[in-house]
Amino acid sequence: MKRIGYLGPPGTFSEEAARRHRGNGEGELVACASLEEVFARLETGLLEEGVVPVENSSEGAVSVVLDMLAAHPELTVRGEVVMQVVHSLLVPPGVKLEMVEKVLSHPQAFAQCRTFLRQKLAGVELQECASTAAAAALAARCRRPWAALAPLSAASRYNLQVLIPAANDCPHNKTRFWALGRKRVLSPVPPCKTSLIFGVRHRPGALYRVLREFAIREINLTRIESRPSKKGLGDYIFFLDFEGAAGDPVVKEMLDVLTEEHTTTLRVLGSYHVEQE
Amino acid sequence: MKRIGYLGPPGTFSEEAARRHRGNGEGELVACASLEEVFARLETGLLEEGVVPVENSSEGAVSVVLDMLAAHPELTVRGEVVMQVVHSLLVPPGVKLEMVEKVLSHPQAFAQCRTFLRQKLAGVELQECASTAAAAALAARCRRPWAALAPLSAASRYNLQVLIPAANDCPHNKTRFWALGRKRVLSPVPPCKTSLIFGVRHRPGALYRVLREFAIREINLTRIESRPSKKGLGDYIFFLDFEGAAGDPVVKEMLDVLTEEHTTTLRVLGSYHVEQE
Repeated sequence: MKRIGYLGPPGTFSEEAARRHRGNGEGELVACASLEEVFARLETGLLEEGVVPVENSSEGAVSVVLDMLAAHPELTVRGEVVMQVVHSLLVPPGVKLEMVEKVLSHPQAFAQCRTFLRQKLAGVELQECASTAAAAALAARCRRPWAALAPLSAASRYNLQVLIPAANDCPHNKTRFWALGRKRVLSPVPPCKTSLIFGVRHRPGALYRVLREFAIREINLTRIESRPSKKGLGDYIFFLDFEGAAGDPVVKEMLDVLTEEHTTTLRVLGSYHVEQE
Repeated sequence: MKRIGYLGPPGTFSEEAARRHRGNGEGELVACASLEEVFARLETGLLEEGVVPVENSSEGAVSVVLDMLAAHPELTVRGEVVMQVVHSLLVPPGVKLEMVEKVLSHPQAFAQCRTFLRQKLAGVELQECASTAAAAALAARCRRPWAALAPLSAASRYNLQVLIPAANDCPHNKTRFWALGRKRVLSPVPPCKTSLIFGVRHRPGALYRVLREFAIREINLTRIESRPSKKGLGDYIFFLDFEGAAGDPVVKEMLDVLTEEHTTTLRVLGSYHVEQE
Protein backbone atom coordinates (compact mmCIF):
# COMPACT_ATOMS: atom_id res chain seq x y z
CA MET A 1 0.00 0.00 0.00
CA LYS A 2 1.19 3.51 -0.87
CA ARG A 3 2.63 5.47 2.07
CA ILE A 4 1.77 9.20 2.12
CA GLY A 5 3.77 11.33 4.55
CA TYR A 6 2.69 14.63 6.12
CA LEU A 7 3.79 16.99 8.88
CA GLY A 8 2.35 15.36 11.99
CA PRO A 9 1.30 14.53 14.60
CA PRO A 10 -2.26 13.61 13.57
CA GLY A 11 -4.55 16.63 13.70
CA THR A 12 -2.51 19.06 11.56
CA PHE A 13 -3.87 20.80 8.48
CA SER A 14 -1.29 18.77 6.58
CA GLU A 15 -2.96 15.54 7.71
CA GLU A 16 -6.29 16.81 6.44
CA ALA A 17 -4.64 17.79 3.13
CA ALA A 18 -3.01 14.34 2.85
CA ARG A 19 -6.41 12.73 3.47
CA ARG A 20 -8.01 14.89 0.74
CA HIS A 21 -5.16 14.04 -1.64
CA ARG A 22 -5.63 10.31 -1.01
CA GLY A 23 -9.37 10.67 -1.70
CA ASN A 24 -11.05 7.31 -2.12
CA GLY A 25 -7.83 5.61 -3.16
CA GLU A 26 -5.63 3.40 -1.04
CA GLY A 27 -2.80 4.77 1.02
CA GLU A 28 -1.45 4.77 4.54
CA LEU A 29 -1.03 8.25 6.07
CA VAL A 30 2.35 8.53 7.84
CA ALA A 31 2.94 11.34 10.38
CA CYS A 32 6.45 12.84 10.16
CA ALA A 33 8.06 14.98 12.87
CA SER A 34 9.13 17.76 10.51
CA LEU A 35 8.96 18.88 6.88
CA GLU A 36 12.65 17.91 6.61
CA GLU A 37 11.69 14.37 7.60
CA VAL A 38 9.02 14.22 4.89
CA PHE A 39 11.71 15.10 2.31
CA ALA A 40 14.27 12.69 3.80
CA ARG A 41 11.80 9.79 3.73
CA LEU A 42 10.77 10.59 0.17
CA GLU A 43 14.43 10.59 -0.84
CA THR A 44 15.15 7.20 0.70
CA GLY A 45 11.93 5.61 -0.57
CA LEU A 46 10.31 5.18 2.84
CA LEU A 47 7.41 7.20 1.46
CA GLU A 48 5.88 7.09 -2.03
CA GLU A 49 4.29 10.52 -1.57
CA GLY A 50 4.52 13.46 0.80
CA VAL A 51 1.95 16.25 1.14
CA VAL A 52 3.54 19.59 2.06
CA PRO A 53 2.31 23.22 2.25
CA VAL A 54 3.73 25.50 -0.47
CA GLU A 55 1.75 28.72 -0.32
CA ASN A 56 -0.63 30.58 1.95
CA SER A 57 -3.04 33.29 0.84
CA SER A 58 -1.89 35.74 3.50
CA GLU A 59 1.73 34.75 4.16
CA GLY A 60 2.82 33.80 0.65
CA ALA A 61 5.33 31.06 -0.14
CA VAL A 62 6.38 28.52 2.47
CA SER A 63 10.02 29.24 1.77
CA VAL A 64 11.51 26.23 3.56
CA VAL A 65 9.48 23.89 1.32
CA LEU A 66 10.45 25.70 -1.90
CA ASP A 67 14.12 25.60 -0.86
CA MET A 68 14.02 21.87 -0.02
CA LEU A 69 12.24 21.15 -3.28
CA ALA A 70 14.98 23.04 -5.17
CA ALA A 71 17.55 20.89 -3.33
CA HIS A 72 15.82 17.58 -4.27
CA PRO A 73 16.01 17.22 -8.06
CA GLU A 74 14.57 13.69 -7.91
CA LEU A 75 11.18 14.91 -6.66
CA THR A 76 8.19 15.88 -8.77
CA VAL A 77 4.84 17.49 -8.01
CA ARG A 78 2.07 14.90 -8.36
CA GLY A 79 -0.98 16.83 -7.20
CA GLU A 80 -2.29 19.83 -5.33
CA VAL A 81 -4.86 20.40 -2.61
CA VAL A 82 -6.18 23.83 -1.55
CA MET A 83 -7.57 24.05 1.96
CA GLN A 84 -9.39 26.70 3.96
CA VAL A 85 -7.25 27.19 7.08
CA VAL A 86 -8.73 28.45 10.35
CA HIS A 87 -6.54 28.70 13.45
CA SER A 88 -8.33 28.36 16.78
CA LEU A 89 -6.96 29.38 20.16
CA LEU A 90 -7.19 26.23 22.28
CA VAL A 91 -6.57 26.03 26.04
CA PRO A 92 -6.70 23.46 28.83
CA PRO A 93 -10.17 23.37 30.44
CA GLY A 94 -10.90 26.36 32.69
CA VAL A 95 -8.20 28.66 31.30
CA LYS A 96 -9.41 32.16 30.35
CA LEU A 97 -7.80 34.57 27.88
CA GLU A 98 -6.35 36.85 30.59
CA MET A 99 -4.68 33.85 32.26
CA VAL A 100 -2.72 32.74 29.18
CA GLU A 101 1.03 32.84 29.91
CA LYS A 102 2.34 31.41 26.66
CA VAL A 103 1.08 30.65 23.16
CA LEU A 104 2.41 27.60 21.31
CA SER A 105 2.24 27.05 17.56
CA HIS A 106 4.04 26.67 14.24
CA PRO A 107 5.75 29.87 12.97
CA GLN A 108 3.37 30.03 9.95
CA ALA A 109 0.37 30.08 12.29
CA PHE A 110 1.93 32.89 14.36
CA ALA A 111 2.46 34.83 11.15
CA GLN A 112 -1.16 34.30 10.06
CA CYS A 113 -2.47 35.46 13.47
CA ARG A 114 -0.09 38.40 14.02
CA THR A 115 -2.74 41.09 14.49
CA PHE A 116 -4.81 38.89 16.79
CA LEU A 117 -1.76 38.14 18.96
CA ARG A 118 -0.79 41.80 19.13
CA GLN A 119 -4.30 42.96 20.03
CA LYS A 120 -5.45 40.23 22.40
CA LEU A 121 -2.27 38.68 23.77
CA ALA A 122 0.26 41.52 23.67
CA GLY A 123 3.48 40.66 25.47
CA VAL A 124 2.58 36.98 25.93
CA GLU A 125 5.44 34.59 25.18
CA LEU A 126 5.33 32.76 21.82
CA GLN A 127 6.95 29.33 21.61
CA GLU A 128 7.62 27.71 18.23
CA CYS A 129 6.56 24.10 17.83
CA ALA A 130 7.16 21.69 14.97
CA SER A 131 3.47 21.79 14.01
CA THR A 132 0.12 23.17 15.14
CA ALA A 133 -0.98 19.75 16.42
CA ALA A 134 2.31 19.32 18.33
CA ALA A 135 1.50 22.67 19.96
CA ALA A 136 -1.98 21.43 20.93
CA ALA A 137 -0.52 18.21 22.34
CA LEU A 138 2.01 20.17 24.42
CA ALA A 139 -0.64 22.63 25.69
CA ALA A 140 -2.75 19.65 26.73
CA ARG A 141 -0.07 17.89 28.73
CA CYS A 142 1.85 20.83 30.27
CA ARG A 143 -0.59 21.55 33.15
CA ARG A 144 0.03 25.28 32.76
CA PRO A 145 -2.16 28.11 31.38
CA TRP A 146 -0.64 27.74 27.91
CA ALA A 147 -2.66 28.14 24.74
CA ALA A 148 -2.14 26.63 21.29
CA LEU A 149 -3.01 28.06 17.87
CA ALA A 150 -4.16 24.90 16.10
CA PRO A 151 -6.97 23.45 13.97
CA LEU A 152 -10.36 23.35 15.67
CA SER A 153 -10.34 19.56 15.26
CA ALA A 154 -7.32 19.35 17.61
CA ALA A 155 -9.54 20.47 20.52
CA SER A 156 -11.45 17.22 20.87
CA ARG A 157 -8.41 15.11 19.99
CA TYR A 158 -6.31 16.64 22.77
CA ASN A 159 -9.08 17.49 25.28
CA LEU A 160 -8.69 21.24 24.94
CA GLN A 161 -11.29 24.01 25.08
CA VAL A 162 -11.91 26.41 22.19
CA LEU A 163 -11.31 29.93 23.49
CA ILE A 164 -11.34 31.73 20.10
CA PRO A 165 -12.68 29.69 17.15
CA ALA A 166 -11.02 31.81 14.42
CA ALA A 167 -7.88 33.76 15.33
CA ASN A 168 -6.41 34.25 11.84
CA ASP A 169 -6.18 37.86 10.69
CA CYS A 170 -7.44 37.09 7.21
CA PRO A 171 -10.90 35.45 7.15
CA HIS A 172 -10.29 33.83 3.75
CA ASN A 173 -7.09 32.15 4.81
CA LYS A 174 -6.21 29.34 2.39
CA THR A 175 -3.16 27.11 2.06
CA ARG A 176 -2.06 25.27 -1.06
CA PHE A 177 -0.40 21.89 -0.57
CA TRP A 178 1.58 19.85 -3.05
CA ALA A 179 1.77 16.07 -3.14
CA LEU A 180 5.39 15.22 -3.95
CA GLY A 181 6.88 11.96 -5.08
CA ARG A 182 9.66 10.50 -7.20
CA LYS A 183 7.35 9.15 -9.89
CA ARG A 184 6.14 11.70 -12.43
CA VAL A 185 2.41 11.80 -13.31
CA LEU A 186 2.56 11.11 -17.04
CA SER A 187 -0.98 11.88 -18.16
CA PRO A 188 -2.69 14.07 -15.56
CA VAL A 189 -6.47 14.45 -15.90
CA PRO A 190 -7.36 17.96 -17.20
CA PRO A 191 -7.66 20.70 -16.04
CA CYS A 192 -3.93 20.68 -15.26
CA LYS A 193 -1.21 22.94 -14.02
CA THR A 194 2.53 22.62 -14.55
CA SER A 195 5.18 23.94 -12.19
CA LEU A 196 8.75 24.95 -13.08
CA ILE A 197 11.93 26.11 -11.38
CA PHE A 198 14.32 28.13 -13.52
CA GLY A 199 17.20 30.56 -13.40
CA VAL A 200 18.10 33.33 -15.86
CA ARG A 201 21.27 35.23 -16.65
CA HIS A 202 21.73 38.66 -15.07
CA ARG A 203 20.92 41.02 -17.92
CA PRO A 204 18.14 43.42 -18.82
CA GLY A 205 15.06 41.64 -20.11
CA ALA A 206 16.06 38.14 -19.00
CA LEU A 207 12.82 37.40 -17.14
CA TYR A 208 10.84 39.28 -19.77
CA ARG A 209 12.15 36.93 -22.49
CA VAL A 210 10.96 33.93 -20.50
CA LEU A 211 7.48 35.37 -19.93
CA ARG A 212 7.27 36.37 -23.58
CA GLU A 213 7.29 32.70 -24.62
CA PHE A 214 4.22 32.12 -22.46
CA ALA A 215 2.45 35.28 -23.66
CA ILE A 216 2.85 34.63 -27.39
CA ARG A 217 1.33 31.16 -26.90
CA GLU A 218 -1.44 32.56 -24.64
CA ILE A 219 -0.45 30.27 -21.81
CA ASN A 220 -1.80 31.63 -18.52
CA LEU A 221 0.61 31.97 -15.60
CA THR A 222 -1.07 31.41 -12.26
CA ARG A 223 1.88 32.27 -10.05
CA ILE A 224 5.48 33.46 -10.15
CA GLU A 225 7.68 33.54 -7.10
CA SER A 226 11.31 34.57 -6.80
CA ARG A 227 13.51 32.90 -4.22
CA PRO A 228 17.08 33.79 -3.32
CA SER A 229 19.50 31.37 -4.97
CA LYS A 230 21.50 31.63 -1.70
CA LYS A 231 24.51 32.66 -3.75
CA GLY A 232 24.05 36.30 -2.70
CA LEU A 233 21.56 39.15 -2.64
CA GLY A 234 20.12 39.88 -6.07
CA ASP A 235 20.59 36.32 -7.34
CA TYR A 236 17.26 34.52 -7.68
CA ILE A 237 15.62 31.41 -8.95
CA PHE A 238 12.00 31.51 -10.05
CA PHE A 239 9.10 29.21 -9.27
CA LEU A 240 6.41 29.48 -11.90
CA ASP A 241 3.05 27.74 -12.33
CA PHE A 242 0.96 27.80 -15.49
CA GLU A 243 -2.19 26.25 -16.90
CA GLY A 244 -1.57 23.20 -19.08
CA ALA A 245 0.45 19.98 -19.03
CA ALA A 246 4.10 19.47 -20.02
CA GLY A 247 2.92 16.85 -22.52
CA ASP A 248 0.69 19.30 -24.47
CA PRO A 249 2.41 19.88 -27.84
CA VAL A 250 2.42 23.69 -27.46
CA VAL A 251 3.82 23.50 -23.94
CA LYS A 252 6.42 20.93 -24.92
CA GLU A 253 7.69 23.10 -27.76
CA MET A 254 7.80 26.15 -25.47
CA LEU A 255 9.76 24.30 -22.78
CA ASP A 256 12.34 23.37 -25.41
CA VAL A 257 12.67 27.02 -26.43
CA LEU A 258 13.02 28.13 -22.81
CA THR A 259 15.68 25.51 -22.11
CA GLU A 260 17.69 26.27 -25.24
CA GLU A 261 17.43 30.04 -25.37
CA HIS A 262 16.30 31.77 -22.21
CA THR A 263 17.19 29.96 -19.00
CA THR A 264 20.39 28.90 -17.27
CA THR A 265 18.58 26.01 -15.58
CA LEU A 266 15.06 24.74 -16.04
CA ARG A 267 13.37 21.92 -14.20
CA VAL A 268 9.81 20.79 -14.76
CA LEU A 269 8.56 20.01 -11.26
CA GLY A 270 5.55 18.25 -12.70
CA SER A 271 2.14 18.49 -14.30
CA TYR A 272 -0.86 17.63 -12.19
CA HIS A 273 -4.64 17.74 -12.08
CA VAL A 274 -6.20 20.72 -10.30
CA GLU A 275 -9.64 20.95 -8.76
CA GLN A 276 -11.85 23.79 -9.98
CA GLU A 277 -12.55 26.24 -7.15
CA MET B 1 17.03 66.88 14.81
CA LYS B 2 15.79 64.08 12.57
CA ARG B 3 14.50 61.00 14.44
CA ILE B 4 15.31 57.65 12.83
CA GLY B 5 13.43 54.64 14.19
CA TYR B 6 14.56 51.01 14.11
CA LEU B 7 13.58 47.67 15.63
CA GLY B 8 15.21 47.81 19.05
CA PRO B 9 16.39 47.46 21.70
CA PRO B 10 19.92 48.77 21.00
CA GLY B 11 22.15 46.01 19.67
CA THR B 12 19.99 44.74 16.81
CA PHE B 13 21.17 44.52 13.20
CA SER B 14 18.50 47.14 12.53
CA GLU B 15 20.26 49.58 14.85
CA GLU B 16 23.51 49.03 12.97
CA ALA B 17 21.68 49.57 9.66
CA ALA B 18 20.06 52.76 10.99
CA ARG B 19 23.51 53.99 12.06
CA ARG B 20 24.94 53.26 8.59
CA HIS B 21 21.99 55.01 6.96
CA ARG B 22 22.54 58.12 9.12
CA GLY B 23 26.20 58.14 8.15
CA ASN B 24 27.90 61.37 9.13
CA GLY B 25 24.64 63.32 9.12
CA GLU B 26 22.61 64.34 12.12
CA GLY B 27 19.87 62.19 13.54
CA GLU B 28 18.70 60.62 16.75
CA LEU B 29 18.32 56.84 16.64
CA VAL B 30 15.04 55.75 18.28
CA ALA B 31 14.57 52.14 19.39
CA CYS B 32 11.03 50.82 18.71
CA ALA B 33 9.56 47.71 20.31
CA SER B 34 8.31 46.20 17.04
CA LEU B 35 8.28 46.77 13.28
CA GLU B 36 4.61 47.71 13.65
CA GLU B 37 5.66 50.48 16.03
CA VAL B 38 8.18 51.83 13.49
CA PHE B 39 5.34 52.13 10.95
CA ALA B 40 2.88 53.62 13.46
CA ARG B 41 5.39 56.29 14.53
CA LEU B 42 6.22 57.14 10.93
CA GLU B 43 2.51 57.52 10.22
CA THR B 44 1.90 59.90 13.12
CA GLY B 45 5.05 61.92 12.48
CA LEU B 46 6.86 60.84 15.67
CA LEU B 47 9.67 59.67 13.39
CA GLU B 48 11.00 61.29 10.21
CA GLU B 49 12.59 58.03 9.06
CA GLY B 50 12.45 54.35 9.92
CA VAL B 51 15.01 51.72 8.89
CA VAL B 52 13.42 48.30 8.34
CA PRO B 53 14.62 44.96 6.89
CA VAL B 54 13.03 44.06 3.53
CA GLU B 55 14.98 41.12 2.15
CA ASN B 56 17.45 38.50 3.26
CA SER B 57 19.77 36.58 0.96
CA SER B 58 18.73 33.19 2.36
CA GLU B 59 15.18 33.76 3.59
CA GLY B 60 13.91 36.12 0.91
CA ALA B 61 11.39 38.89 1.51
CA VAL B 62 10.51 40.04 5.00
CA SER B 63 6.83 39.63 4.26
CA VAL B 64 5.49 41.56 7.23
CA VAL B 65 7.41 44.67 6.13
CA LEU B 66 6.25 44.43 2.50
CA ASP B 67 2.66 44.03 3.67
CA MET B 68 2.85 47.01 6.03
CA LEU B 69 4.44 49.11 3.32
CA ALA B 70 1.59 48.19 0.95
CA ALA B 71 -0.85 49.29 3.67
CA HIS B 72 0.85 52.69 4.18
CA PRO B 73 0.47 54.66 0.93
CA GLU B 74 1.96 57.80 2.52
CA LEU B 75 5.39 56.19 2.95
CA THR B 76 8.26 56.28 0.47
CA VAL B 77 11.63 54.54 0.27
CA ARG B 78 14.40 57.06 0.92
CA GLY B 79 17.47 54.86 1.00
CA GLU B 80 18.85 51.36 1.27
CA VAL B 81 21.56 49.68 3.35
CA VAL B 82 22.90 46.17 2.74
CA MET B 83 24.47 44.45 5.74
CA GLN B 84 26.36 41.23 6.29
CA VAL B 85 24.39 39.42 9.00
CA VAL B 86 26.02 36.88 11.30
CA HIS B 87 24.02 35.28 14.11
CA SER B 88 25.99 34.16 17.16
CA LEU B 89 24.80 31.77 19.83
CA LEU B 90 25.16 33.69 23.09
CA VAL B 91 24.76 32.24 26.58
CA PRO B 92 25.07 33.35 30.21
CA PRO B 93 28.63 32.78 31.51
CA GLY B 94 29.42 29.11 32.20
CA VAL B 95 26.63 27.61 30.09
CA LYS B 96 27.75 24.87 27.67
CA LEU B 97 25.98 23.75 24.48
CA GLU B 98 24.65 20.53 26.01
CA MET B 99 23.11 22.47 28.91
CA VAL B 100 21.00 24.79 26.72
CA GLU B 101 17.29 24.33 27.53
CA LYS B 102 15.84 27.00 25.29
CA VAL B 103 16.91 29.21 22.41
CA LEU B 104 15.52 32.75 22.14
CA SER B 105 15.50 34.87 18.99
CA HIS B 106 13.52 36.64 16.28
CA PRO B 107 11.70 34.28 13.84
CA GLN B 108 13.91 35.48 10.93
CA ALA B 109 17.04 34.46 12.84
CA PHE B 110 15.56 31.02 13.58
CA ALA B 111 14.83 30.66 9.87
CA GLN B 112 18.40 31.65 8.93
CA CYS B 113 19.86 29.14 11.44
CA ARG B 114 17.46 26.24 10.80
CA THR B 115 20.11 23.63 9.90
CA PHE B 116 22.34 24.65 12.81
CA LEU B 117 19.42 24.34 15.25
CA ARG B 118 18.41 20.95 13.87
CA GLN B 119 21.96 19.57 13.96
CA LYS B 120 23.28 21.02 17.21
CA LEU B 121 20.20 21.77 19.31
CA ALA B 122 17.62 19.22 18.11
CA GLY B 123 14.53 19.19 20.28
CA VAL B 124 15.49 22.30 22.24
CA GLU B 125 12.62 24.73 22.76
CA LEU B 126 12.56 27.83 20.51
CA GLN B 127 10.98 31.00 21.89
CA GLU B 128 10.15 33.90 19.59
CA CYS B 129 11.23 37.36 20.74
CA ALA B 130 10.49 40.77 19.26
CA SER B 131 14.12 41.15 18.14
CA THR B 132 17.52 39.45 18.39
CA ALA B 133 18.71 41.99 20.96
CA ALA B 134 15.55 41.50 23.05
CA ALA B 135 16.42 37.79 23.01
CA ALA B 136 19.95 38.53 24.25
CA ALA B 137 18.60 40.81 26.99
CA LEU B 138 16.18 38.10 28.14
CA ALA B 139 18.86 35.37 28.07
CA ALA B 140 21.05 37.64 30.18
CA ARG B 141 18.49 38.31 32.89
CA CYS B 142 16.65 34.97 33.08
CA ARG B 143 19.24 33.12 35.23
CA ARG B 144 18.54 29.91 33.31
CA PRO B 145 20.62 27.99 30.74
CA TRP B 146 18.91 29.81 27.87
CA ALA B 147 20.77 30.84 24.72
CA ALA B 148 20.08 33.70 22.29
CA LEU B 149 20.74 33.91 18.54
CA ALA B 150 21.83 37.54 18.27
CA PRO B 151 24.54 39.81 16.84
CA LEU B 152 28.00 39.20 18.23
CA SER B 153 28.00 42.79 19.51
CA ALA B 154 25.13 41.93 21.86
CA ALA B 155 27.50 39.67 23.88
CA SER B 156 29.44 42.50 25.51
CA ARG B 157 26.38 44.74 25.79
CA TYR B 158 24.42 42.10 27.74
CA ASN B 159 27.30 40.29 29.47
CA LEU B 160 26.87 37.06 27.57
CA GLN B 161 29.45 34.54 26.36
CA VAL B 162 29.87 33.64 22.68
CA LEU B 163 29.30 29.89 22.36
CA ILE B 164 29.12 29.73 18.53
CA PRO B 165 30.33 32.85 16.68
CA ALA B 166 28.50 32.12 13.40
CA ALA B 167 25.40 29.93 13.54
CA ASN B 168 23.72 30.98 10.28
CA ASP B 169 23.38 28.23 7.69
CA CYS B 170 24.47 30.44 4.82
CA PRO B 171 27.93 32.00 5.28
CA HIS B 172 27.16 34.92 2.94
CA ASN B 173 24.04 35.93 4.82
CA LYS B 174 23.06 39.49 3.91
CA THR B 175 20.04 41.60 4.73
CA ARG B 176 18.80 44.60 2.78
CA PHE B 177 17.20 47.41 4.77
CA TRP B 178 15.11 50.30 3.53
CA ALA B 179 14.96 53.74 5.10
CA LEU B 180 11.31 54.79 4.93
CA GLY B 181 9.79 58.23 5.44
CA ARG B 182 6.93 60.42 4.29
CA LYS B 183 9.09 62.83 2.33
CA ARG B 184 10.15 61.67 -1.12
CA VAL B 185 13.82 61.98 -2.16
CA LEU B 186 13.49 64.23 -5.20
CA SER B 187 16.97 64.08 -6.71
CA PRO B 188 18.76 61.00 -5.41
CA VAL B 189 22.51 60.85 -6.09
CA PRO B 190 23.29 58.26 -8.83
CA PRO B 191 23.63 55.31 -9.01
CA CYS B 192 19.94 54.93 -8.09
CA LYS B 193 17.28 52.32 -7.82
CA THR B 194 13.52 52.80 -7.96
CA SER B 195 10.97 50.53 -6.27
CA LEU B 196 7.36 49.98 -7.32
CA ILE B 197 4.26 48.16 -6.12
CA PHE B 198 1.73 47.24 -8.80
CA GLY B 199 -1.18 44.98 -9.59
CA VAL B 200 -2.23 43.54 -12.96
CA ARG B 201 -5.46 42.14 -14.33
CA HIS B 202 -5.90 38.36 -14.39
CA ARG B 203 -5.26 37.49 -18.00
CA PRO B 204 -2.56 35.73 -20.02
CA GLY B 205 0.47 37.93 -20.57
CA ALA B 206 -0.42 40.60 -17.98
CA LEU B 207 2.93 40.49 -16.17
CA TYR B 208 4.75 39.97 -19.47
CA ARG B 209 3.33 43.24 -20.82
CA VAL B 210 4.66 45.09 -17.78
CA LEU B 211 8.14 43.60 -18.08
CA ARG B 212 8.15 44.29 -21.81
CA GLU B 213 8.10 48.04 -21.14
CA PHE B 214 11.29 47.66 -19.13
CA ALA B 215 12.95 45.36 -21.66
CA ILE B 216 12.36 47.57 -24.72
CA ARG B 217 13.96 50.49 -22.83
CA GLU B 218 16.83 48.28 -21.57
CA ILE B 219 16.03 49.10 -17.96
CA ASN B 220 17.51 46.47 -15.66
CA LEU B 221 15.26 44.85 -13.08
CA THR B 222 17.12 43.93 -9.92
CA ARG B 223 14.27 42.15 -8.15
CA ILE B 224 10.69 41.08 -8.57
CA GLU B 225 8.63 39.67 -5.73
CA SER B 226 5.02 38.56 -5.73
CA ARG B 227 2.96 38.92 -2.55
CA PRO B 228 -0.56 37.68 -1.96
CA SER B 229 -3.03 40.56 -2.25
CA LYS B 230 -4.86 38.87 0.67
CA LYS B 231 -7.99 38.80 -1.46
CA GLY B 232 -7.54 35.09 -2.15
CA LEU B 233 -5.07 32.51 -3.44
CA GLY B 234 -3.83 33.36 -6.91
CA ASP B 235 -4.32 37.12 -6.50
CA TYR B 236 -1.00 38.92 -6.18
CA ILE B 237 0.63 42.30 -6.04
CA PHE B 238 4.20 42.72 -7.27
CA PHE B 239 7.16 44.49 -5.72
CA LEU B 240 9.69 45.42 -8.36
CA ASP B 241 13.06 47.22 -8.16
CA PHE B 242 14.97 48.55 -11.15
CA GLU B 243 18.05 50.61 -11.90
CA GLY B 244 17.37 54.29 -12.48
CA ALA B 245 15.38 57.13 -10.95
CA ALA B 246 11.69 57.98 -11.41
CA GLY B 247 12.77 61.44 -12.58
CA ASP B 248 14.84 60.13 -15.52
CA PRO B 249 12.93 61.04 -18.71
CA VAL B 250 12.92 57.45 -20.03
CA VAL B 251 11.71 56.06 -16.71
CA LYS B 252 9.09 58.78 -16.33
CA GLU B 253 7.66 58.04 -19.75
CA MET B 254 7.63 54.30 -19.02
CA LEU B 255 5.84 54.76 -15.70
CA ASP B 256 3.10 56.72 -17.51
CA VAL B 257 2.69 53.88 -20.02
CA LEU B 258 2.54 51.29 -17.22
CA THR B 259 -0.07 53.31 -15.32
CA GLU B 260 -2.24 53.97 -18.36
CA GLU B 261 -2.04 50.65 -20.13
CA HIS B 262 -0.77 47.73 -18.10
CA THR B 263 -1.44 47.94 -14.38
CA THR B 264 -4.54 48.12 -12.19
CA THR B 265 -2.63 50.00 -9.49
CA LEU B 266 0.91 51.38 -9.56
CA ARG B 267 2.72 53.11 -6.75
CA VAL B 268 6.26 54.44 -6.95
CA LEU B 269 7.71 53.63 -3.54
CA GLY B 270 10.66 55.88 -4.22
CA SER B 271 13.97 56.41 -5.96
CA TYR B 272 17.09 56.29 -3.84
CA HIS B 273 20.85 56.19 -3.99
CA VAL B 274 22.48 52.75 -3.77
CA GLU B 275 25.99 51.91 -2.67
CA GLN B 276 28.07 49.90 -5.12
CA GLU B 277 28.88 46.45 -3.71
